[in-house]
Amino acid sequence: MIDNQQLAMALRSFAAERDWDQFHTPKNLATSISVEAAELLELFQWSRGQKGWDEVADPSIRAKIEEELADILLYLIRFADKAGIDLEAIDERKIASNAMKYPSEKFRGSDRKYDE
Amino acid sequence: MIDNQQLAMALRSFAAERDWDQFHTPKNLATSISVEAAELLELFQWSRGQKGWDEVADPSIRAKIEEELADILLYLIRFADKAGIDLEAIDERKIASNAMKYPSEKFRGSDRKYDE
Amino acid sequence: MIDNQQLAMALRSFAAERDWDQFHTPKNLATSISVEAAELLELFQWSRGQKGWDEVADPSIRAKIEEELADILLYLIRFADKAGIDLEAIDERKIASNAMKYPSEKFRGSDRKYDE
Amino acid sequence: MIDNQQLAMALRSFAAERDWDQFHTPKNLATSISVEAAELLELFQWSRGQKGWDEVADPSIRAKIEEELADILLYLIRFADKAGIDLEAIDERKIASNAMKYPSEKFRGSDRKYDE
Repeated sequence: MIDNQQLAMALRSFAAERDWDQFHTPKNLATSISVEAAELLELFQWSRGQKGWDEVADPSIRAKIEEELADILLYLIRFADKAGIDLEAIDERKIASNAMKYPSEKFRGSDRKYDE
Repeated sequence: MIDNQQLAMALRSFAAERDWDQFHTPKNLATSISVEAAELLELFQWSRGQKGWDEVADPSIRAKIEEELADILLYLIRFADKAGIDLEAIDERKIASNAMKYPSEKFRGSDRKYDE
Repeated sequence: MIDNQQLAMALRSFAAERDWDQFHTPKNLATSISVEAAELLELFQWSRGQKGWDEVADPSIRAKIEEELADILLYLIRFADKAGIDLEAIDERKIASNAMKYPSEKFRGSDRKYDE
Repeated sequence: MIDNQQLAMALRSFAAERDWDQFHTPKNLATSISVEAAELLELFQWSRGQKGWDEVADPSIRAKIEEELADILLYLIRFADKAGIDLEAIDERKIASNAMKYPSEKFRGSDRKYDE
């Protein structure tokens, strides 16, 4: 489980102690999610990670991946908390709507987008 | 709570039914997180979201935000599941290390980066 | 003028000398453009740059902006060279099609997207 | 050649006619570059573009690539024009400094970052 309510509370205190709420606008938190996502992506900028998951078993690369995944998730939790959005609920809904958008009979083995 | 283990199981079935595991490499999932992060960011490309959270109360913009947050989180959960990474644990560690990187005495009210 | 043909030639030599063509696939160069774009964006992650262009006159921030703009443009030129795409021609076409997509009578003073 | 001065003039008129200068802050234009970069990246989200440039010869994918490259470059030119930055000059400087950061004796055939 991810205890996002507890993490959200910790992030609220963290921001309050530093008088950072003023910077945590929707635009700035959305920007932060993108900035951190690109730092994860940078680990795979060239040949790394193109084949499979044994490539990310190496401890030093794994440590970097964990840093970036954590950064992205914390900003996501912070954004959702500020916006009053229930991350568990929207995820369940999303999996259901994706199943309808990508019926397996039509998309098995294919990586084309639903509108391609 | 976010039941990421359950969501991860649902995503495993989803991919297996569509023979999509072949596409779910580290590089491709990292790419997907970035692509979805930019779709969230696009909602705030111009003036929207620069001031505060009441701006995202509007139902139509809120619905779009929920779509994109869900997309980002699902790819994050999928990536972590494939990599065998515990998202709860890395988040707790991150908040602790951020507290040390940004002591409140030094950074209160400031948005400068730790190395600025 | 941007002498993109000359810059493209310099980039070809640069890659050849380092045996880097193997890494310069469409996917990897598109990834690189995104990674560098996020490094530019990071300079504006919080409050900086929200009001106006005098904010970027400061020499130290200006130097960082120049680094990132150059990185993005070099990857763009490299991508276009590898793909055989004429950047001048596509830009002229784009300005024309944007004018049709955003007639000034309909969009004056508005930052909504064409399909909003 | 890319006649960026002429394109910049066209973009100035375009924005003025629509009273859009108010939206063209450093932060918003940096955001736009990232948003468009991700739209290019999305074309390569899964298996496309991982091997080589013949993959992007297909006319329909080529047309989409041209759209996104043009979007990125126009925002780059607009940003540089507003900031008073000479894109040709910074690019020449960048190639030179990259040559020093990545001497071919040390980096031939390797995709590691300079600090790896």
